[in-house]
Amino acid sequence: MSDCIFCRIAAKEIPSKVVYEDDVIFAFDDIRPQAPVHTLIIPKAHIASLNDMPDDRTDVIGHIFAKAPEIAAAKGIKATGYRLVLNTGPDSGQDVFHVHFHILGGRKMHWPPG
Amino acid sequence: MSDCIFCRIAAKEIPSKVVYEDDVIFAFDDIRPQAPVHTLIIPKAHIASLNDMPDDRTDVIGHIFAKAPEIAAAKGIKATGYRLVLNTGPDSGQDVFHVHFHILGGRKMHWPPG
Repeated sequence: MSDCIFCRIAAKEIPSKVVYEDDVIFAFDDIRPQAPVHTLIIPKAHIASLNDMPDDRTDVIGHIFAKAPEIAAAKGIKATGYRLVLNTGPDSGQDVFHVHFHILGGRKMHWPPG
Repeated sequence: MSDCIFCRIAAKEIPSKVVYEDDVIFAFDDIRPQAPVHTLIIPKAHIASLNDMPDDRTDVIGHIFAKAPEIAAAKGIKATGYRLVLNTGPDSGQDVFHVHFHILGGRKMHWPPG
């Protein structure tokens, strides 16, 4: 069994509110939402952070962004707008070391982005 | 001549502080920085927003994320950490309708991300 909480969520060993799933990515609602819609999109494969991602694996990120508008639509925020956020390393506030994109919307987002 | 300011920046018709450039992407410093490091990464091809991006064009986003750690390293924030942000649509605060990723670092980033 993996020690990584997001690997375990993607494997459904830990329950989550699933928003989208296919062979390579998994999307589920953040348990500490910062906006009316706050969903996380992760690759199923364990990659600790963007700094640890081999160049030949970034196709999974292309796939995440191909599906992001669909995930936004499923949550009702595709037309109203949404922010995608990826944290990498200490200053960013990255807390779980499995690459995860935040998608937030359902309210006006502010600037700066944190 | 394009009406799009980011197309014109990428074409060097408008000067910018260039951070990185290759055949498909262009990175330059934001003129209204929200952190000690605040750089924008754009595809050279004009795509208004993520909602307007055909699925078969998301390889350019994979490429942006493949190069992002290198761009972070060039700005001295790869190890300290950085946040990548993409705004799409009205609620997000997207202001220029040419896909652009913000990369921010050089200080502790806060939560929520705006």
